[in-house]
Amino acid sequence: MYRSHTCGELRLAHVNNEVTLAGWVQKTRDKGFMVWVDLRDRYGITQLIFDEERTPAHIFEKAGELGREFVIQVTGKVIERESKNKNIPTGEVEILVSGLTILNSANLPPFTIEDETDGGEDIRMKYRYLDIRRTPVKNSLMFRHKVAMEVRNYLSEKEFIEVETPYLIKSTPEGARDFVVPSRMNEGEFYALPQSPQTFKQLLMVGGMDKYFQIVKCFRDEDLRADRQPEFTQIDCEMAFVEQEDILNVFEGLTRHLLQAIKGVEVDQFPRMTFDEAMRRYGNDKPDIRFGMEFGELNEVAQHKDFNVFNNAELVVGIAVPCGASYTRKEIDELINWVKRPQVGALGMVYVKYNEDGSYKSSVDKFYDAEDFEKWAEITGATPGDLICVLSGNKNKVRTQLSALRMELAERLGLRNSDEFAPLWVVDFPLLEWDEETGRYHAMHHPFTSPKPEDLNLLETNPGKVRANAYDLVLNGNEIGGGSIRIHDKELQSKMFSLLGFTKEQAQAQFGFLMNAFQYGAPPHGGLAFGFDRLVAILGGQETIRDFIAFPKNNAGRDVMIDAPSPIDDEQLEELHIKLDLK
Amino acid sequence: MYRSHTCGELRLAHVNNEVTLAGWVQKTRDKGFMVWVDLRDRYGITQLIFDEERTPAHIFEKAGELGREFVIQVTGKVIERESKNKNIPTGEVEILVSGLTILNSANLPPFTIEDETDGGEDIRMKYRYLDIRRTPVKNSLMFRHKVAMEVRNYLSEKEFIEVETPYLIKSTPEGARDFVVPSRMNEGEFYALPQSPQTFKQLLMVGGMDKYFQIVKCFRDEDLRADRQPEFTQIDCEMAFVEQEDILNVFEGLTRHLLQAIKGVEVDQFPRMTFDEAMRRYGNDKPDIRFGMEFGELNEVAQHKDFNVFNNAELVVGIAVPCGASYTRKEIDELINWVKRPQVGALGMVYVKYNEDGSYKSSVDKFYDAEDFEKWAEITGATPGDLICVLSGNKNKVRTQLSALRMELAERLGLRNSDEFAPLWVVDFPLLEWDEETGRYHAMHHPFTSPKPEDLNLLETNPGKVRANAYDLVLNGNEIGGGSIRIHDKELQSKMFSLLGFTKEQAQAQFGFLMNAFQYGAPPHGGLAFGFDRLVAILGGQETIRDFIAFPKNNAGRDVMIDAPSPIDDEQLEELHIKLDLK
Repeated sequence: MYRSHTCGELRLAHVNNEVTLAGWVQKTRDKGFMVWVDLRDRYGITQLIFDEERTPAHIFEKAGELGREFVIQVTGKVIERESKNKNIPTGEVEILVSGLTILNSANLPPFTIEDETDGGEDIRMKYRYLDIRRTPVKNSLMFRHKVAMEVRNYLSEKEFIEVETPYLIKSTPEGARDFVVPSRMNEGEFYALPQSPQTFKQLLMVGGMDKYFQIVKCFRDEDLRADRQPEFTQIDCEMAFVEQEDILNVFEGLTRHLLQAIKGVEVDQFPRMTFDEAMRRYGNDKPDIRFGMEFGELNEVAQHKDFNVFNNAELVVGIAVPCGASYTRKEIDELINWVKRPQVGALGMVYVKYNEDGSYKSSVDKFYDAEDFEKWAEITGATPGDLICVLSGNKNKVRTQLSALRMELAERLGLRNSDEFAPLWVVDFPLLEWDEETGRYHAMHHPFTSPKPEDLNLLETNPGKVRANAYDLVLNGNEIGGGSIRIHDKELQSKMFSLLGFTKEQAQAQFGFLMNAFQYGAPPHGGLAFGFDRLVAILGGQETIRDFIAFPKNNAGRDVMIDAPSPIDDEQLEELHIKLDLK
Repeated sequence: MYRSHTCGELRLAHVNNEVTLAGWVQKTRDKGFMVWVDLRDRYGITQLIFDEERTPAHIFEKAGELGREFVIQVTGKVIERESKNKNIPTGEVEILVSGLTILNSANLPPFTIEDETDGGEDIRMKYRYLDIRRTPVKNSLMFRHKVAMEVRNYLSEKEFIEVETPYLIKSTPEGARDFVVPSRMNEGEFYALPQSPQTFKQLLMVGGMDKYFQIVKCFRDEDLRADRQPEFTQIDCEMAFVEQEDILNVFEGLTRHLLQAIKGVEVDQFPRMTFDEAMRRYGNDKPDIRFGMEFGELNEVAQHKDFNVFNNAELVVGIAVPCGASYTRKEIDELINWVKRPQVGALGMVYVKYNEDGSYKSSVDKFYDAEDFEKWAEITGATPGDLICVLSGNKNKVRTQLSALRMELAERLGLRNSDEFAPLWVVDFPLLEWDEETGRYHAMHHPFTSPKPEDLNLLETNPGKVRANAYDLVLNGNEIGGGSIRIHDKELQSKMFSLLGFTKEQAQAQFGFLMNAFQYGAPPHGGLAFGFDRLVAILGGQETIRDFIAFPKNNAGRDVMIDAPSPIDDEQLEELHIKLDLK
């Protein structure tokens, strides 16, 4: 036994006990006749005291050799501290050390192992094993475990069965790019790593499993955007004999349970909003509804005056910025420049100060009068003291731009409070989206999503208008889950593949196993997948997802600590019958 | 709502309720004026009745169209059955159907969806989604889920944290062959899929995580032996500040909990046996101790007579087969042929019948008398009525041969009762094993296993004699877990790599990240990994592991259902800068 107690365990009640602790030296203070050491393990920190008078001489001497992050084992008596530390649970006691073993020495760490560290991200990733010793990172990993346990226990109690689906599957060039894995046993052939267990969970429904879930790694061989990982974790769920309403209820229940169990937050029934409404009110299919600043469409009241910018625009839309009327000219110019940045892409911005005294001052005073602005204020919900920001142009573009501005302002105004949780369902997504580049329709969700029955007749005549039985779960401006009712009819599935530009042969080659399965009695079914990394990060307080992953990869897809990926040797290549062909 | 109740839910108390059920047609019986249908879902089977007099005519007519495995939804009244079926929980009631919707039709399945099916393994794998509808397979998957939940909840309660380790790692040509994954973002470089999270869990210990576990997929690109999968699941565990004794206690606790919670079986403290003892008593490092037939070494009493086969043998060893004295000559010949099969490889077998009357009859009566045989009987524990089977030759070979015979006879004699559970720890494994082929030592466990401190001095002088702090958990003749105390000292780890034939540069290139980590304060640590597939199978009653895997691969590593692996297209290859070079 290396220890009788952990470093987070001892209290006043243990005074006079002989104990053995083991852990890392957090820091030492040497006053010559006395040495204090903070000993740290996963469970906490306990103060050790080496006293020239009371500690055996050879032990006292060794105490002087201890450096940061040395691994030691000590025995001693628990005594009451003279100056108590109220900040830590063990702060009322210390250990008067009588025995010391150095279990391992340590080089000076390349950054300080403290809550606030001096190490930049690169160095912390390279020495991730040291980073994990820091309380915030350690707590993030423990938090992730706790969320996973809550998910599993909740779903298990609701009769969901966790079924492991395979990682070595068949490559299907649908959606993002697959990672492929050459097979030695079957030469010239490749497995793929799953982008999601989508088809397998559907097969489980055909197999009568009824309620399935899995917390599972998925893989996408894509150029990484910031805070995306080539391997990511999903809570994958599927149910049979359900309609959309059943699924929303079950997973609203799960989400509510998590908020309650993990954060102690009680949330009312989640609002539901159609995709169209979300776009109209927030310019965004994953609106953050913790705050207002809803869009006001101004076409009717701002067009047909002499301002041609608006007259020629498909959409004129504004938001009211709380207390923005007090912004200086310089501040407003900065906002205008912000929306004109290439990442946002607006051509300009019209503003109206709705002053506290009820007067208006705007950049378009030439074209509009107070009566006009009164209508603008009414539509955007502005009250005296607010600033109305207005963008115009192509409907889709301008919504995206104004949504970006809305989020930016909310961030600046401190309206995105990470302790507040505002979930909602966005429903009735379009089934298809037109892709200019390829000149064909793509599945907005995936090709297994079922159209709304009432829109089925539009499939031939106006596919772009067909709405899907698809839904996203949005939390604080993030899509944390998404899913759909699936097609369970072979004919409809064939039609979908053909709409998406697959020939019959292609569809059969790639998804034949699923369509074959549909011939043998497929039940109505649907499901949802949560982005577990994102969910954990939001529940944990909006940190980047990387903080909640033990060994993350950087934006180039590299694990800098273990140097992966890396070249493999010629022998391995030869065994795989592979030649590299680098240009 | 597709259903008000499941097909396993209705009882006498529900009589007169109006209910809606959905599921698959298990079978129909049509008597002309009445049609019975067994409706099946995951939860059970409920009998439906369509009655010419009481069921609306158009519904009654449709009932005649229902084929096996059609997916239907029915509404009707719960009524008491006239002839009750005591074999199923819903057997006292049936549904008098008043409404019927065919949700999906079904082709005739290629095998019967019954507990006992007419489908061979190949066809069942090809249509695995139909196989899963069969109660035994469905139950196996649910059982697996239950075991996983018990493991997670038990370990979680013991303060273990489940941490996800990466799947895209660095290839290390140690142990079995890695599956490799070409990286598009980093051309010419490859990830590997982990054979186990070994190094990552050690880094987590260096990171202070203290108690780690993970139920995790692992991968080995090996030619498959029967009932082995290229991807398999492991319960992976590691603890810091522990000695071997601590680890054995914790995981003995877990195993005892599983036996109790899952099987209702209480087991005493697990016996411990050294590797040497296991080899001596059972010829096997994973002995099945549910039955006796222990080895008796006969060198002292059987050598130095005139029987040169024995005189020239390194080991003469026998077992007593209960009641085997009654075997006919033909039966004994069959046994002799059995041990001479190439898979066993014995050159012959000597037998002694210890007759009920106390007399002996043997194949070596020419060389030995009753007094000799009395000693043999004493050493092998034979009693009158038994048959003593004796093999001789090279020690290691003959032990393996006799162990195979012991297991075969136990199987034939019905001594391997799958309801009985006899776990034990095998400890003190050799650290290294000599490999004739490469002419060097290999790590018996893996290169991170620590030698026993008392054997450290042998590392230089007699490496083959060094015992490791390594242990296996054996259950009913299967290794279900194995692990070791790890090396946590950089110097010793370097020495190990050098003993195993690594140059300093090779060791640094492959395991530098781990040895670097050891410089920053590595705690003493150790762990264990359970073969989850095997554990589940044994707890579930000794079936093959394949039955407990939703979508298994066949012995050629193929998923016949989805046709994986399969060729990928030229575009994908080009993007990966890969050319195939098939001979």
